Amino acid sequence: MSDVLRLGIAGLGTVGVGVVRLLAARGGELAQNGGRRIEITAVCARDRNKDRGIAIDSYEWYDDPVTLAREARIDMLVELIGGEEGPARAATEAALARGIDVVTANKALLAHHGTELAHLAEANGANLGFEAAIAGGIPIVKAMRESLAGNAIARVYGILNGTCNYILTKMEQEGRDFADVLAEAQELGYAEADPSFDVGGHDAAHKLALLACLAFGREVNFDAVYIEGIEAITSDDIAAAAELGYRIKLLGVAQATGGGVEARVHPTLVPRGSAIAEVSGVFNAVVVEGDFVGEVMLFGRGAGEGPTASAVVGDIVDIARGCQVAPFGRKAGALKPYVRAPMRAHEGGYFTRLSVYDRPGAIASIAQRMADQNISIASIIQRNRDKAARHARPEDAPPAAVTLVTHETTEEAMRTALAAIERDGHIAGPPQTIRIEPT
Amino acid sequence: MSDVLRLGIAGLGTVGVGVVRLLAARGGELAQNGGRRIEITAVCARDRNKDRGIAIDSYEWYDDPVTLAREARIDMLVELIGGEEGPARAATEAALARGIDVVTANKALLAHHGTELAHLAEANGANLGFEAAIAGGIPIVKAMRESLAGNAIARVYGILNGTCNYILTKMEQEGRDFADVLAEAQELGYAEADPSFDVGGHDAAHKLALLACLAFGREVNFDAVYIEGIEAITSDDIAAAAELGYRIKLLGVAQATGGGVEARVHPTLVPRGSAIAEVSGVFNAVVVEGDFVGEVMLFGRGAGEGPTASAVVGDIVDIARGCQVAPFGRKAGALKPYVRAPMRAHEGGYFTRLSVYDRPGAIASIAQRMADQNISIASIIQRNRDKAARHARPEDAPPAAVTLVTHETTEEAMRTALAAIERDGHIAGPPQTIRIEPT
Repeated sequence: MSDVLRLGIAGLGTVGVGVVRLLAARGGELAQNGGRRIEITAVCARDRNKDRGIAIDSYEWYDDPVTLAREARIDMLVELIGGEEGPARAATEAALARGIDVVTANKALLAHHGTELAHLAEANGANLGFEAAIAGGIPIVKAMRESLAGNAIARVYGILNGTCNYILTKMEQEGRDFADVLAEAQELGYAEADPSFDVGGHDAAHKLALLACLAFGREVNFDAVYIEGIEAITSDDIAAAAELGYRIKLLGVAQATGGGVEARVHPTLVPRGSAIAEVSGVFNAVVVEGDFVGEVMLFGRGAGEGPTASAVVGDIVDIARGCQVAPFGRKAGALKPYVRAPMRAHEGGYFTRLSVYDRPGAIASIAQRMADQNISIASIIQRNRDKAARHARPEDAPPAAVTLVTHETTEEAMRTALAAIERDGHIAGPPQTIRIEPT
Repeated sequence: MSDVLRLGIAGLGTVGVGVVRLLAARGGELAQNGGRRIEITAVCARDRNKDRGIAIDSYEWYDDPVTLAREARIDMLVELIGGEEGPARAATEAALARGIDVVTANKALLAHHGTELAHLAEANGANLGFEAAIAGGIPIVKAMRESLAGNAIARVYGILNGTCNYILTKMEQEGRDFADVLAEAQELGYAEADPSFDVGGHDAAHKLALLACLAFGREVNFDAVYIEGIEAITSDDIAAAAELGYRIKLLGVAQATGGGVEARVHPTLVPRGSAIAEVSGVFNAVVVEGDFVGEVMLFGRGAGEGPTASAVVGDIVDIARGCQVAPFGRKAGALKPYVRAPMRAHEGGYFTRLSVYDRPGAIASIAQRMADQNISIASIIQRNRDKAARHARPEDAPPAAVTLVTHETTEEAMRTALAAIERDGHIAGPPQTIRIEPT
């Protein structure tokens, strides 16, 4: 092992600049602790002359990351370009094919091509580190792959997208609407100009696909993740959940079931006072449930220059120290095929809000539809009408807001019951249904 | 590297049995993931014939752990005897001297002899893993030593003793007294027959001494840890703290100050709603503050068969994989001498409860003593007297409970002011003073 580890950094956006800054600030210490000097040799970005607040003149410049990966005299490619295809993928493949280690923060790339990249790394004796790809500064990859290696994992779940958690937190704390808080988050830089990737749950799903692979030793399968975003959550949902002792969080959940791996990203009700329910604002948290360790939670900042750079450098130091662990904790060939548990087989409790017309028999009919599917109702709340509504003739009264919480049932049963309820015509508009996650 | 890693397990108490069980349950998976079979070759305990619920007949038996460490044909000693001296120390030293890796859950041994043991391991090319020594199943050692290696750490703090946290949680939730809850914890097996090691803060101090070394790269120095236990905390303290928006937790805190490392274990007031304040019951949690990563918290079970075995096996798997990281993340010779910041120089806010005689000028005198030390008072609460007291003549009235909270000051100033207040004779009994920890 040479006494210098030479890095090529592809991508000098927020995270790339953070890595350069961190290495400048702590390089001496890291050389001492890792046993090798870590040196940036080459860099690549879209615009050489952009002012980034860091000096890059002493590094070899490449216009093209693939050329950097193929030709630069480096020991490691630090891929911070992003995107599941294009130059990020090509550069990563080129580096691994040369036997050059890769450290990346690219969740999209790994979620879509993780298994093949793990094979490619292994075939060429290269490392592939991606701590920064899941939950930023939180060291969840290492914890699952190494620290908790002795455990059979039953479930891993978490708050994996800071934008969504910020929006839901603000909606709850200030009683505001989704659109209003989203606009503010965009102004503050917590949400992108096109927020659909975050608020639609896709970003969290990328991370969840990787967590599922780490947890269950199965090939990465992004397409198997069931995804719902938070766009349809209203402040009324949040208030109704609060009344029942719950908070609404966008969770990514991967769990082992008899029918395979259930991986899903959707808004969930979690009991107030549980650790995950108390994670607020832009913070992320991941809970791992192992048969020996019990419940372990890791909490921290899931994005941003500093936290992501911290995770990237953690991977770099590991490799500098000569620790070679397979990307997903086992040989690529030992990853089992992914078996997808169908979402309709999901078992759990449900919270549903209905606008029920004030007619004799409406509630009875709804309850019967639930009973037909063997769904047992844990609680039902019909809000007091305002005074005008109470004094209107029944046929003129506006629909009443009814909140139902069920005991554990299946997604199949719930969907069937709700479809029947809609067909019966006792409710105005579609039901708003949110799954309850036990924590 | 041989394809089998042969273990000698010294100590078959709760944790030893857990490790045997875990390896039996998950050995096949671990062999596949770690690339080597992990085999128990030899064991040692006090009583060969005790029924432990596991079969040990197929392992070589040793009556003496030191003989096992010196003579058994093993690649690794798993030291689960405990105790800072005696056979645990002798066996660990014997194994390391032979160049045999050691994995241990022994916080007392490491807290007292960590630096020497790190030197001994390094001199003989052996690994020394101690993930299980701090906060049980929580992977904090690896997180600090590896994942967060890129960060300069400003402070690390945590709930490091589940017994104390259980007692404080119960006292708060049920308004009960320390002695009462302690007795119950002893019945439930959450507290030892002699609880002084836990409730006196010594166990937490062992762990803190190791965290301080990992955080600041300085030699382990248990003697430098300032220690106060929870024995003197009353339900009145907890109620008064709650009234001000705080919860009382026994924290271990290590922070870098201009004057050196401040390492202290004592009851603290932490703001309700902060992540650490929400950690209840027997759970442990550790918060690390890094310059790049920001705040990271790890939460989980700090003790018990399963969690501790999980941590021990995590270390075993690392070593099986060939990851060799210095015990404290840097060469033993690179650990800087410990510089102790005197406790009197501690800066922070204080909460103090005084029983003040109802005399004209008493409060004024107390406030003046604070002012003399430049201590600024953030809040002062004098509880309403009960009816009898309100109607008594002033000279017969019982002392009033006065709760003071100060803005940031120094321990030196606070001690000086309180000593003067006691001398003035306006208070009955010594003040009850608890530090406030910003979180």
